[in-house]
Amino acid sequence: MENNLLEIQQLVKKCNKASSDIAVASSGKKNEALINIATNLMNSKDEIIKANKKDVEYAKIKKISLAMIDRLILDDSRIKKMADALIEIAELPDPVGKMTNMRIRPNGIRVEQMSIPLGVIGFIYESRPNVTSDAAGLCLKSGNAVVLRGGSEAFNSNLAIVKIIKKSLKEVNISPEIVTFIPTTDRTAISEMIKYDEYIDMIIPRGGEGLIRFVTENSRIPVIKHYKGVCHLFVDESADLEKAIDILVDGKISRPGVCNSLETLLVNRKITETFFPKVREKLINKGVEIRGCLETAKNLKGIKIATEEDYYAEFLSLILAVKVVENVDEAILHIKKYSSDHTEVIVTNDLKNSQKFVNEINSSVVMVNASSRFSDGGELGLGAEIGISTTKIHSYGPMGLESLTTKKFVVSGDGQVRG
Amino acid sequence: MENNLLEIQQLVKKCNKASSDIAVASSGKKNEALINIATNLMNSKDEIIKANKKDVEYAKIKKISLAMIDRLILDDSRIKKMADALIEIAELPDPVGKMTNMRIRPNGIRVEQMSIPLGVIGFIYESRPNVTSDAAGLCLKSGNAVVLRGGSEAFNSNLAIVKIIKKSLKEVNISPEIVTFIPTTDRTAISEMIKYDEYIDMIIPRGGEGLIRFVTENSRIPVIKHYKGVCHLFVDESADLEKAIDILVDGKISRPGVCNSLETLLVNRKITETFFPKVREKLINKGVEIRGCLETAKNLKGIKIATEEDYYAEFLSLILAVKVVENVDEAILHIKKYSSDHTEVIVTNDLKNSQKFVNEINSSVVMVNASSRFSDGGELGLGAEIGISTTKIHSYGPMGLESLTTKKFVVSGDGQVRG
Repeated sequence: MENNLLEIQQLVKKCNKASSDIAVASSGKKNEALINIATNLMNSKDEIIKANKKDVEYAKIKKISLAMIDRLILDDSRIKKMADALIEIAELPDPVGKMTNMRIRPNGIRVEQMSIPLGVIGFIYESRPNVTSDAAGLCLKSGNAVVLRGGSEAFNSNLAIVKIIKKSLKEVNISPEIVTFIPTTDRTAISEMIKYDEYIDMIIPRGGEGLIRFVTENSRIPVIKHYKGVCHLFVDESADLEKAIDILVDGKISRPGVCNSLETLLVNRKITETFFPKVREKLINKGVEIRGCLETAKNLKGIKIATEEDYYAEFLSLILAVKVVENVDEAILHIKKYSSDHTEVIVTNDLKNSQKFVNEINSSVVMVNASSRFSDGGELGLGAEIGISTTKIHSYGPMGLESLTTKKFVVSGDGQVRG
Repeated sequence: MENNLLEIQQLVKKCNKASSDIAVASSGKKNEALINIATNLMNSKDEIIKANKKDVEYAKIKKISLAMIDRLILDDSRIKKMADALIEIAELPDPVGKMTNMRIRPNGIRVEQMSIPLGVIGFIYESRPNVTSDAAGLCLKSGNAVVLRGGSEAFNSNLAIVKIIKKSLKEVNISPEIVTFIPTTDRTAISEMIKYDEYIDMIIPRGGEGLIRFVTENSRIPVIKHYKGVCHLFVDESADLEKAIDILVDGKISRPGVCNSLETLLVNRKITETFFPKVREKLINKGVEIRGCLETAKNLKGIKIATEEDYYAEFLSLILAVKVVENVDEAILHIKKYSSDHTEVIVTNDLKNSQKFVNEINSSVVMVNASSRFSDGGELGLGAEIGISTTKIHSYGPMGLESLTTKKFVVSGDGQVRG
């Protein structure tokens, strides 16, 4: 193992060294590389599927859950999606080189800030092998090198995809070392990798809460992450109830397994009699389990009573916690206590309440009269989504390419000194 | 000690709880508080000086260096400076509540980003007691609560200053818990504090490299820091040599003990004969020790030959490492290898070389024809300086109030759902 760790360090070092070339590559060059990877992925479908079959067979022997196996499988259409994603990334504007915040100081020096790549991104992820090409593509476009550490279940698939990426980079004269794959399923590789703060600038973990906690607690490198999405919807007294129920149905039922789905509904006491019948019709009758407070239970006979844990829970299934509140202040207090800092929604027609909600709730996305399901990089207009951050440092909320960059100061003078 | 740690945790928790009030305080309220602290500091000078005398006496007994004792001493004029700094902070624009990046999406939802405070900042610092009021003022203005952990040498002074700050906050109806002081000189308090990632959002260490490394390696909370400033000046073939020597003298001699002073000079081979005589006249003859490469030594007889370590060194004194290089490319390679990512300067009249230098060097501040000594929040127009970051996450380079904020997404719709 010690040899192995040394090898990992060497790989990461080389990746770091190669990063300064990709940092200054032109947009044209980077896009050429992205399109070449996409083409080669399509042309090497059989090779990828062959490697993927090994992973799938092994997963079956290991009796991994069917849901996990489904995430693992690559077929023609999924490989096409991977290629398409790379082409979409090529079409996005280059986040590098933008000049902003220009000012002339009294002594005549000009101060600006220029967007630059972070350097080396460490991606640590679990089963889905498409993350391999997505992450490589996003880092490449933003001028970063990347160290990939995929899940052991997808090891052979990842290896095959990385081989094609490296070949594609070589063909357009970009150092293949900018996409570095940690070729071991040994978990100590993760502990090792997150120590290299000299060579890696940011770690992005994608996967279960266990993985993310492990990485956060042990990393010397800044980690951009979110643990979970406990998204709230507050229906205010003044709400248009048709819109409110549409937003509730969209948030709870359209895709309950994702982090921007709704987990808790807060309802103003004054509208319980008019709103709860709609909840029965559009949710309970469609199979949604309600866990509510005593006041909810008065209006919706037969529901379960919510426990304290239910208000903290990310159900990721057709379960909804419900609470009746006095007013917007109580709703805000509840959200502040139970929030995961992901996304919170108010449905209201009252300007003061909407302003209060927006100003006082500091979750990463705060919405007025719109579905929590819009809390997504693509939907918010950021282009491809790298992840969601629910910690406030560097990036907060859905992350676009810009979150893989930082800004340096550029100062121009004519010989000025401070004296 | 265990009791003590529990007490620290309680203090930090309370500070976190109070942070949501200051987060939504109006600019007027925050400025009123800042001015009240300034007034009370001036009115309580005697109390502060009395507490400070204890620290100074103790420092003398402990035989702490005179330079350290000098940093520790508070007198009338230094307290006035502390108060003035707070008034200056009050006069700065409020970094909170700014709306940016507005866009309307095709479905009609409006997406914006609003600046919000980070929440709770942890400041860990060494001897200077004025950091206590500076840090409290900067955090207050940016709507953040702060946990202060000052050096043991300034313990009594810090305690006195914090007492006045808390009293001043109370007088204007702001929870005094937003400025929390860790009342122990025990170093384990630091290890404890940097574990509380649930309650503290960012750690800013100010002090020696040892403290900063300790904090970085052990913190679960993101750390914004810089280790050192090894700033380079490259004098290009086309440079105006008078300007070059002025910038060199300003960078090396005006204040050699600070991080934005110059440590290494790179000179294009073609101008050694004209430039080095000026170096002799304006630096060597003024007491600067030169440690140069062999080629430098040919031109400047009698100098020391530089070792590899000299090129990595932050001398913080009248020593300058010098190297002759072939061209801008060699200068860039040298800087990339030895840089601390602080500040690098080119003096040139060649547009292509200046662009190359600016584009390829990704230190936090890159300058053309201006002194490295401008690498400072105030000089760059950021207002009060919180620190300098030489890591690229969240903030890079001199940090103004804005670096104590983040941006949440605010989405407004009219009932839109994703479906």
